[in-house]
Amino acid sequence: MASRVLQSSSAALRAVSASPLIGKTSRAVRISSTLPRCRHFTASSRTMSPPFYAWEPEGPVVKTDIPGPKAQAAIRELNEVFDTRSLNMLTDYPKSAGNYIADPDGNILLDVYAQIASIPIGYNNPALLKAARSDEMINGLINRPALGNFPPEDWAEVLRSGILKVAPKGLNQVFTAMAGSDANETAYKAAFMWRRQHERGGAHVEFTAEEMESAMDNKSPGASDLSILSFKTGFHGRLFGSLSTTRSKPIHKLDIPAFDWPQATFPQLKYPLDQHVEENRAIEKAALDEVEHLLKNYHVPPCAVIVEPIQSEGGDNHASPEFFRGLRAVTRKHNVLLIVDEVQTGVGATGRFWAHDHWNLEDPPDMVTFSKKAQTAGYYFGNPELRPNKPYRQFNTWMGDPARALLFRAIIGEIERLGLVENTARVGDYLYGKLEGLAKKYPGQFENLRGKGMGTFIAFDNPQRDQFLVTAKKFGVNIGGSGQSAVRLRPMLIFQERHADILVERLEEVVKALQK
Amino acid sequence: MASRVLQSSSAALRAVSASPLIGKTSRAVRISSTLPRCRHFTASSRTMSPPFYAWEPEGPVVKTDIPGPKAQAAIRELNEVFDTRSLNMLTDYPKSAGNYIADPDGNILLDVYAQIASIPIGYNNPALLKAARSDEMINGLINRPALGNFPPEDWAEVLRSGILKVAPKGLNQVFTAMAGSDANETAYKAAFMWRRQHERGGAHVEFTAEEMESAMDNKSPGASDLSILSFKTGFHGRLFGSLSTTRSKPIHKLDIPAFDWPQATFPQLKYPLDQHVEENRAIEKAALDEVEHLLKNYHVPPCAVIVEPIQSEGGDNHASPEFFRGLRAVTRKHNVLLIVDEVQTGVGATGRFWAHDHWNLEDPPDMVTFSKKAQTAGYYFGNPELRPNKPYRQFNTWMGDPARALLFRAIIGEIERLGLVENTARVGDYLYGKLEGLAKKYPGQFENLRGKGMGTFIAFDNPQRDQFLVTAKKFGVNIGGSGQSAVRLRPMLIFQERHADILVERLEEVVKALQK
Repeated sequence: MASRVLQSSSAALRAVSASPLIGKTSRAVRISSTLPRCRHFTASSRTMSPPFYAWEPEGPVVKTDIPGPKAQAAIRELNEVFDTRSLNMLTDYPKSAGNYIADPDGNILLDVYAQIASIPIGYNNPALLKAARSDEMINGLINRPALGNFPPEDWAEVLRSGILKVAPKGLNQVFTAMAGSDANETAYKAAFMWRRQHERGGAHVEFTAEEMESAMDNKSPGASDLSILSFKTGFHGRLFGSLSTTRSKPIHKLDIPAFDWPQATFPQLKYPLDQHVEENRAIEKAALDEVEHLLKNYHVPPCAVIVEPIQSEGGDNHASPEFFRGLRAVTRKHNVLLIVDEVQTGVGATGRFWAHDHWNLEDPPDMVTFSKKAQTAGYYFGNPELRPNKPYRQFNTWMGDPARALLFRAIIGEIERLGLVENTARVGDYLYGKLEGLAKKYPGQFENLRGKGMGTFIAFDNPQRDQFLVTAKKFGVNIGGSGQSAVRLRPMLIFQERHADILVERLEEVVKALQK
Repeated sequence: MASRVLQSSSAALRAVSASPLIGKTSRAVRISSTLPRCRHFTASSRTMSPPFYAWEPEGPVVKTDIPGPKAQAAIRELNEVFDTRSLNMLTDYPKSAGNYIADPDGNILLDVYAQIASIPIGYNNPALLKAARSDEMINGLINRPALGNFPPEDWAEVLRSGILKVAPKGLNQVFTAMAGSDANETAYKAAFMWRRQHERGGAHVEFTAEEMESAMDNKSPGASDLSILSFKTGFHGRLFGSLSTTRSKPIHKLDIPAFDWPQATFPQLKYPLDQHVEENRAIEKAALDEVEHLLKNYHVPPCAVIVEPIQSEGGDNHASPEFFRGLRAVTRKHNVLLIVDEVQTGVGATGRFWAHDHWNLEDPPDMVTFSKKAQTAGYYFGNPELRPNKPYRQFNTWMGDPARALLFRAIIGEIERLGLVENTARVGDYLYGKLEGLAKKYPGQFENLRGKGMGTFIAFDNPQRDQFLVTAKKFGVNIGGSGQSAVRLRPMLIFQERHADILVERLEEVVKALQK
């Protein structure tokens, strides 16, 4: 196997060495600020669309076991000061390029995991390089503001030309945060304050002495006895409030105190979808009934429901647009907020900018949270009542990071310039078709293939999943899992047909190797 | 008044215009990467030590009310998309320099609030500018890793030459985070896992089926019934776990669900300290007795105590090194971890790198959390048992931000190069002496002056505190409050005697204006 891979990758290696982005032996980053235009690319038989950038290798290069000797030495050193037990691959970022991730031993893998779905437009993207070198970015980096107190004079402009330009329909305000966990937690805080304000009779009603006193002692009525409803197998973060809504795996939750908040069953659809229409409709109806039952009866009343458009950590679980429209209706009916967690699904990978765009809601969600590919975090909202009635109720020192907000603006610019949302829709369909072919050819190996029409946000189950992921590296692919048995594809937005071809070819090799 | 200020600031204005760091009318940042050496400065009668950098204005410039007309227009625009009710001052960061913060109307204030104690070595510091322009920083910014899975090959070196170089005595490991809140929350998670591991009988004991199942339902025994003990008037962040330990003000906590965790009284010392020695000793003993009582008897058993060396948001409340040594002893005695929250006190402002260095502990704290002036966040620990027994128990996608870690390394470099910890110790003593003079001259106006020997981490109470803070801006000083009535000084580490002279002169003007 190794010789075959090595053979096929000599051209790729030449391409890498020739790249202006990639140094040969120096540790320093050697990067050019020239933003190359799209150009036609004729060297590969795999070409279907011209490549977005010219700086990528042509394919994976596997030179050693992973980790190889250099990586192993560095991991030993790192482990003295940093927990390395969750380490997947020690990475050489300066040598990574586009869809390809490099390691210290000279291995270069096609990366369809992308830093847990967080790299939007490729490693060492020249547009981001240009943004990073701008005076504006440097100012954001070295003069970090306490945004709530001392916003930069152009903060409205930065928001409008960046984060707000892609705001979901119906939501025109943003609260900026640092990562997915605190994006969700600040959204929860907004929900609790909103609901209590309703119960009190409006924004003008002052807090009682009893509320002020009991809040300081962590007791009700000052600390509310309300809850957030989430779904089984959902993931919303790992701080104390977000972890209380996360229901992915015991290892994420064990030993950590949690709030007594309710969980509903997320529809467990059967595949292929077109062969289980009635059954799946009944499954989704039962899930909605369970949600309504909990909203009406749970002993700690929910003020909001949080849901992922596709449960991503929990195993790539999908539900139909009808289900989500039903969820909007039932939350509206019971005066409960709907928070859509787009931390992993947002920013283009599903063939729409936001995954919930697929639902065609007439009545938008109350809040939408984001992070990962946005390279910054926070939540969108539309209703002015979701601004708390007094200042300093929703506040912290940094409230996000302007440098990261500027990076998101540059990412949005590239997504628009290159039509990357349309790209993931088209390439996703292409890839899905190829994977359907593999599923037929290798029964049981690409089980429950899912994500049709959802861009490149595709997954399947494999009976030897963990071994599958390890073996994929030997064939030049960096790929991740989710839930108990899913292999999840999370390519970047610049993943093209040429990459899909390589991926499918290598996945077939993995399955063949596992069946030996 | 205004004319006096305007008169005195014409020289300052010339200095600003001449600065290579500050543009005149352009919105763009015009900054030089030349790192100037210390040079002797002879133009001002205020000079006691040579200035660290040559790019600062000589003093405040107040041209308009704050907010002035340009700021008011920009705030109206910002308010359409961002909550501006906590806005203190709209800021022109490119025109800010060193200890001076600028606004869009051309006002330039001496900044002793420093983005809520978060700017370490001045606005537009040339050393940070150089670091921000480096290829290494640009790589960290545009290729953001999921650190736990895909650390950069030089991550050990970045940690060792930066964050770990200043690790508190006895603590040689670090878990990186994003901000103070999640630094504390991840430390709490480590504490819960550590205690439950002890209770189970060691790292090798597997979780039971009942634990795994109940954890998914947010119930014990899987979700532990343990607590974190914190102190009244303490502040540790505003996410759900950290907020449950925050006891600063009702407005921070109202309506947010909280854990049933215990609070102990923080010593409320009487000032001047030398006139209340016996009384204060009794106050501290009573506080320690209360801690011990809660550790032994609280119905949700504490596994850790968290404490700030100086309660910063809660009103600048100090306690003696003896008190903290007693706290270390009583936590050790009851096998409870001691977490020192140095988010606001850390990184040099108290005349030691860490405020808890003042305690001369023989037995170090179990964990020390940091953020703010570090421009990144996390917690230090020493005991290998504080690494959870399995991977992925303490984990999230980003686990910090390498770009911010590189910035902290550059900050540490400047602190060392210029001897800034020694600087805050010396300038703090100088400033404290001057403020003692003011306190004598204006009885009741600089009440409970505190922070002697604690660098520039100084505070006093004023009966018209809120008015005091607003009025200070008219006299060219940006300054913050804490607790109910404290004026808190949080100058940067590059605050020198010349700045102390200006500050003291202006504070006297504020008091005179308020007494009119």
